[in-house]
Order: sequence, then structure tokens, then C-alpha cells
Amino acid sequence: MRITGTFIDEISHDIPHQNWGRAEWDQDFAHMKSIGIDTVIMIRSGYRRFITYPSTWLQKEYGCYAPSEDLVEMFLQLAEKHGLKFYFGLYDSGKYWDSGNMQHEIDANRYVIDEVWSKYGHYSSFGGWYLSMEISRKTKGAATAFRVLGEQCKSVSNNLPTLISPWIDGKKAVMASSATLSKSDVVSLQEHEREWDEIFHEIHHAVDAVAFQDGHIDYHELEDFFTVNKKLADRYGMQCWTNAESFDRDMPIKFLPIKFEKLRLKLEAARKAGYDKAITFEFSHFMSPQSAYLQAGHLFNRYKEYLEKLK
Amino acid sequence: MRITGTFIDEISHDIPHQNWGRAEWDQDFAHMKSIGIDTVIMIRSGYRRFITYPSTWLQKEYGCYAPSEDLVEMFLQLAEKHGLKFYFGLYDSGKYWDSGNMQHEIDANRYVIDEVWSKYGHYSSFGGWYLSMEISRKTKGAATAFRVLGEQCKSVSNNLPTLISPWIDGKKAVMASSATLSKSDVVSLQEHEREWDEIFHEIHHAVDAVAFQDGHIDYHELEDFFTVNKKLADRYGMQCWTNAESFDRDMPIKFLPIKFEKLRLKLEAARKAGYDKAITFEFSHFMSPQSAYLQAGHLFNRYKEYLEKLK
Amino acid sequence: MRITGTFIDEISHDIPHQNWGRAEWDQDFAHMKSIGIDTVIMIRSGYRRFITYPSTWLQKEYGCYAPSEDLVEMFLQLAEKHGLKFYFGLYDSGKYWDSGNMQHEIDANRYVIDEVWSKYGHYSSFGGWYLSMEISRKTKGAATAFRVLGEQCKSVSNNLPTLISPWIDGKKAVMASSATLSKSDVVSLQEHEREWDEIFHEIHHAVDAVAFQDGHIDYHELEDFFTVNKKLADRYGMQCWTNAESFDRDMPIKFLPIKFEKLRLKLEAARKAGYDKAITFEFSHFMSPQSAYLQAGHLFNRYKEYLEKLK
Repeated sequence: MRITGTFIDEISHDIPHQNWGRAEWDQDFAHMKSIGIDTVIMIRSGYRRFITYPSTWLQKEYGCYAPSEDLVEMFLQLAEKHGLKFYFGLYDSGKYWDSGNMQHEIDANRYVIDEVWSKYGHYSSFGGWYLSMEISRKTKGAATAFRVLGEQCKSVSNNLPTLISPWIDGKKAVMASSATLSKSDVVSLQEHEREWDEIFHEIHHAVDAVAFQDGHIDYHELEDFFTVNKKLADRYGMQCWTNAESFDRDMPIKFLPIKFEKLRLKLEAARKAGYDKAITFEFSHFMSPQSAYLQAGHLFNRYKEYLEKLK
Repeated sequence: MRITGTFIDEISHDIPHQNWGRAEWDQDFAHMKSIGIDTVIMIRSGYRRFITYPSTWLQKEYGCYAPSEDLVEMFLQLAEKHGLKFYFGLYDSGKYWDSGNMQHEIDANRYVIDEVWSKYGHYSSFGGWYLSMEISRKTKGAATAFRVLGEQCKSVSNNLPTLISPWIDGKKAVMASSATLSKSDVVSLQEHEREWDEIFHEIHHAVDAVAFQDGHIDYHELEDFFTVNKKLADRYGMQCWTNAESFDRDMPIKFLPIKFEKLRLKLEAARKAGYDKAITFEFSHFMSPQSAYLQAGHLFNRYKEYLEKLK
Repeated sequence: MRITGTFIDEISHDIPHQNWGRAEWDQDFAHMKSIGIDTVIMIRSGYRRFITYPSTWLQKEYGCYAPSEDLVEMFLQLAEKHGLKFYFGLYDSGKYWDSGNMQHEIDANRYVIDEVWSKYGHYSSFGGWYLSMEISRKTKGAATAFRVLGEQCKSVSNNLPTLISPWIDGKKAVMASSATLSKSDVVSLQEHEREWDEIFHEIHHAVDAVAFQDGHIDYHELEDFFTVNKKLADRYGMQCWTNAESFDRDMPIKFLPIKFEKLRLKLEAARKAGYDKAITFEFSHFMSPQSAYLQAGHLFNRYKEYLEKLK
């Protein structure tokens, strides 16, 4: 199972910033390309007051800060240069996390989708949309928002594909800011199947691919959950991707690059389940030879050796 | 707003040590100089049993360990070589944190001030004193100690300037050892103004400059608090500096270099408020091209590009 | 006190993995050799489902994952190449931590010891056994297991030496996953002596050397505890080593390389107490010039300067 896509985490909740400029991003896209990555997914276009492109509307309506660079334009241009597809991640106002009400996210993004498509839709690298609100079974109410926003994304852009990346409510599904690494109140396989069947039922016309995050369950649970995920995606005609997390959830430092053996187990489970594509969260911090975490460069080398063996 | 000063955090509460020797410090002072830094501030000369210079008195009275290097002498010599001013940070016995009683800090430092001035006062780079106990509104009682020690510093050294760097009791004012990143019981702008008016009233004859730490409030609150700080400093004839923190308080890893956009917002808020000088905590871990955190070198580059644009 | 041994932490509880391949390990053994290290100790041959060598028995009985490399063989070969002795660390099923029952560890390792000796006993670098379950006074019941397993290790291998590395139940004896750095319920010197006298009494025929971890007590407590440890080891004819931790337990980031001054204090305390040997946990993350933590390379340099001064 080859990783052919990666998130770009430039507006981050929990991963410290690398402070790269255009030169470093240019180089990183070349590194990605060298191992077969064809898709980059900007994880969100903004989070609360920090935004990736100069939207006067978001500055006025949501008090966002004027960014010093237009990252969306830069990523689109670099994606064109390196022959990658760019997925645009929607804006996250943070209000849903605070209030449980998705209406703010819908309202903000109805504007953002139109604005972004009109500003950047002409780039040939604009390849799809990432519906950036991360959900799990406990946030099922959010499914409606995904349907509404997914439909709008597809309709303005001649049906460009849409992607979501939810999490499985497993034992490692704890907040990054939590002092703990695991919890005991976890979803059963049966509950997972029943609840995601409902969610997929609602969203499947508006969402082309689902990439479950693979890091919240234990390694020996991967096979069962992946089998269910694939079955559900097939049932609703959605593509089933894996979001192979390349950071380690088992360590007190939150977060550094994952041990290669763990990544391998997860990729092999996705292959066995017949998944359609593997993406990762994310290359630039956790797998790149130029990452500030030098473990990432070694992970890059181990991963390349693994690809060699697969041939 | 150009950063022209930095702390040196060689006796640290919470930042892991880089294990630099004289060669690395020499190089780092050159890096500082290259971006316009003219002042280095040793954050404390000792903390509990670890000390920066071989004080037999502190070893005897406070059980301090004999240091293998005289860091005060080294910093003074390197400051002379590179044309920087060195501020000496007072000793922190830790007893105030344990007991709430400042008398120990006063007693210890009355000796330390005399000893240090007699040992190192002849260096032309000895440029000032840093009253190292960090206070906020909840530790107002500490103001008397600042007055007493500030007066002594100035009187032994022909009135060399004194500096304090308190914190604003905002939502990010949590202990580094805490698992959380924020709290809800925060100071209002009005309380902040009233309480610091009292504190400045007491200390202003003994303290020349106040550099509030800029990292405990949210970015959109900076303007209001900075305006108040400048007004209060003006009222009492003190210089108003900003302590622009170059580490990121918003991330689970405590602490790595800050995202440049955040630093930029803070520096611009200080400029708008008419602040007199910007210093940072601190260059060597978080902004230096030779930092063990490689993000710091990229921050250095982004900051230099920013300086270019300001020209 | 020169460090002449190091753990290798390839199946880690709490230290993020560096993703090294054979080339990096080869280089690291050369770095170790260059400062006088003659012994490498693999901290455990497996932890729960992750294992270091392809044991079909552990895969079958404990659901372990098939490893992609045989690390035991690689370490033995590199140890031969560089003239180091390799200690094999026993398997940790994790069941003791979950249930408090040591029988699982005894059962699993009775098989592992035979298997490993028959597979790898012919390597001339196979120099000893590390009884990997870490105990302290609160887990005294574990002493029997050490006796049983130590006796078996020695009997299959023509009496190769066995090593344990317990911890002192001091103020820094908190879990790595805990948000705190210290606790208040600590062992007194007298309790420590009484309880370890009992433990040593039980195990001393099966354990050749004891290397207490040196990081759980404060620096000024080292002398007293080290004196007791040496007295007890002498009483029972065991070698007394120090496990000089080269990571810093006092910082919010768990864990980065230690400040050299702290390591120096600990080594000097071991020297004063007449300890027989110093090992470290561990070289490759915290002292190696090629560590992903660049502070480690500086620690390596500071340590080499220290060795020069000792001459």
C-alpha cells in the first residue's frame, strides 16, 4: 500500500509550525513527488482567526488576521509545478467546538467556497475539496453539514471530488491537549458499523471518499475495523481511503514521527482490506527529509526501502 | 518593531538545555548581533541549587552545586567581544515559590548583588540588572522586594538600569508543568490597569524598564493590554518594552519555536502601542540558526525577511 | 566515572523511535566505542505485541507482530564488529503491569531464554542477560521472578552475567505519561535500605550486577542513597553499577537530553561511592552525535571535554 497523498497542516491545532517559506515548500513538494505522492490536501483554510489566504470577508465577519502570505495560491502554484493535485480544506471557525452548533460552519463556508472557487478555481492543480470538520460517531449531527457543504463544493466546481477524514472512537481518541494517551470508554465494532452506516447514508451523494484516521485503535484491531469501513464504503459507492498517521500516538511527546514498524502494520492492514488509496497526516513534519524532526528523514528512508521490497 | 534584546536561559525552569560550550555561545552572539540585537539578559544567576558563577557564599548558605564553568564571566567576555550589553539576572532561591515569603530572595540577593558587582563590575559589557522574580497581579506583595533590590542594584553600580518582566494574568497563564494550555479565571483589562498602577507606584523609582511577557493573552487582546501598559509606564516615567515570546504557548509540546505569523502579530501590536524596545524569550532555543530546534532557524529566516520588508 | 555501557531502547515505552537502519546503528556503535563504551544492553526483546526478533512462539502465544528486521542478530553482529559485549533484555508481556501477576513474565521468558540462547548463543558478542522488568520497593514480589529467571539465564549460558536496573522510589518516580514531574510520597533512606536488603537477599545468587537508575531522587540526595546501595551490593557480593540517565526528568518535554552539569553531578556521586561501572539510559537518543535531538551531540562534546579533564 503506497502512500499517494498527504495533508498539509499549515493552520494547525496541535503540531508546532516549521516556519517554512516558499523555497522549503517547493523542495518538500519535490520530496513528496519522489515517493509517489500525487495529492496534497490543505487540512483547513483557516482556524478561528488564523487564515491561509487573504479573505477580506473572513477578516470582517470573523475577525481573522490578515495573513502575510497567500498560502493557497502558493500551494496551487507549487502543485502545478510538481504535477500534484491540491485539495482545498474548508474553514473552521471554531464555533462548532465551542457551541456544538454547526450552523456557523455552514454559513461561513457557503461564502468561502464561492470566494475560493472564483479566486483559485482556474488553477489546473485545484483537484478537490476537503470537508475539514473532523467528526466521529459522537458528532453525527454534523453529517448534515457535510452533505450541504459537499453538495455546494461539487456544484460550483463541475463536480470536483470531496473528501472527509473522520476518526474511529477507539482507545487512543483523546485530545492532543490531554495528559493521557488512552481512554477506556471506546466504541465497539458493532456500534461503529451501525453508526457509520447512518452517517454514510446521509452524506454519500455529497462525499466521494472517506479516509478514516488510522491511529485511534490498537494495531491488532485494524483488520476488523478496516474490513467494516470498506464494506460500508462499498455499500454507498464511496471510495475508501486510509489516513495513515505518520506520527506516534503512543508517546508522551505529542507528537513526533511514528516508528516505521507501526506505519507498516497500518499500511498492510489497509492493503489487506482492499482500500483504494493511502494518504498520510502528514508528510512535511513526520516523513520529510527536511523536517525539523530528524526522525522523519529516517522514516522517509525506511519507507523507501519498504517500497523497494514491494516491487 | 525590531527585536533588539534577548534573554539567555542557562538556568532554566522548563526549557531543556542545549549543552553548548563557549564556541557555540560565541557563534550565537554573532547570530544575535547580525539581526540587530544589542542586549543579552541572563534570566537568573541561579535557581535553587544550580548557579551560573562560582559563588562560595551561595554554595555555603544555600547548598548550591559548584558549577563547572563561570557562565557570567563567559557571557560578559563574549558580550564585550560582540559589542552587546549584558544584564545580570538575580538569584532565585526557589523559597518564594515554596513559601510565599520574599524575605529569602531579598536576603540572598543583597549579598549576590554586592558580590557580583565586585567580581564582574569592571566589565564594560555589564550593562544592567534584571530583577528576575517573575510576578503578576497575584504576587503584588513581591513589589516591595523589587523596590529594595532595584535600589541596591542601582546604588552599587552607578545607577545602571534595572528591568523586570512580569506576566499578564491572561488565559494562557498556566504553569509549564500543567497539562493544560489555558484557564478561564483571567484578569480583566480594568483589573490589570488598577493593579499594575499600584505596583508601578511602588517600584518606579527602582525599576527603569518593564517588559511584560506577551504570550499569556490572545492575539486580539494584545492591542488593549499593550495600550494600558504603555499608558501606565508613561505615567510613572518607566520605559515600556515588550517581551516577545518566540516559543509557542498553543501547542501540546511545551515548548517549541513559535509560528512566525504569531510573532509578527505581537511585534506589530507593540509597535502600534508605541513601545520603546522589544526583547525576546529567547533567541538561542527559539530563533537561532544553530538551535537544536530546527524550526528556530526557519523562524530566523522568516524574521529576517520581515525586517527586509520593513525597510 | 566513565560511562562504559549503554542501553539500547528499540522497543520503547516512552521514547519516540529514531527509525534508524543498519547503517545508522553501525555508525552509532562506532560513536559509542569512541568514548569507551564496551557494553550495549538491549532493554527488552519485546513489549506486548512488538518484538525485536522473529520468534514464532511469541507470535503464536502472545499475538506478537512479525518484525521486519531481526534486531537481535543485527546488534550481535555489530557488537562483534566493534568489539562490544551485548546483553540480551528479556521479554515484557505487559501482563504484569496490567495484573500484578509475574507468572506470565516467568512463563514467557522460560521459553524465550532457551530460544534465544539456541539461536544466538554462538555469537562471541553475547555477553550477558538483562532481567528487564523494572522493579522498585513496591514491587518486591517480583524478586522471586528475578531469581528464577536469572538462574535460568546463567544455567543455559555457562554462567554469563545477569544485570538488573531498578529504580529508587524518590520524588521523581512518576510515570512518563503523567502530567506531573514529581510526587510527595517518597521512600526514606532507611526504608530504602531495609527493603533492598530483603530483595538483594533473595536474588543475589542469580543477579551479578545491580544498576540503580539515578534519576528519581534529587541531586543532593545522591550521595546518601549511593552509599547505601554500594554497602548493600557489597554485603551480597553483587557488583554495584550506576544507570546514569542521560535524559532530563525535570522538564515538561518528556524527554530530551539532560543538561551536562546534572549528568556530571550524578557521575561524580557514583565515583565517590566507589561504584564499579557506569552505564547510561541511553546513548543513541540522548548522547549520540547523530541523535535526532541535536542537544545530544552537544552533550557528547561536553562529556568528551569532561573525560579530557579527568586525565
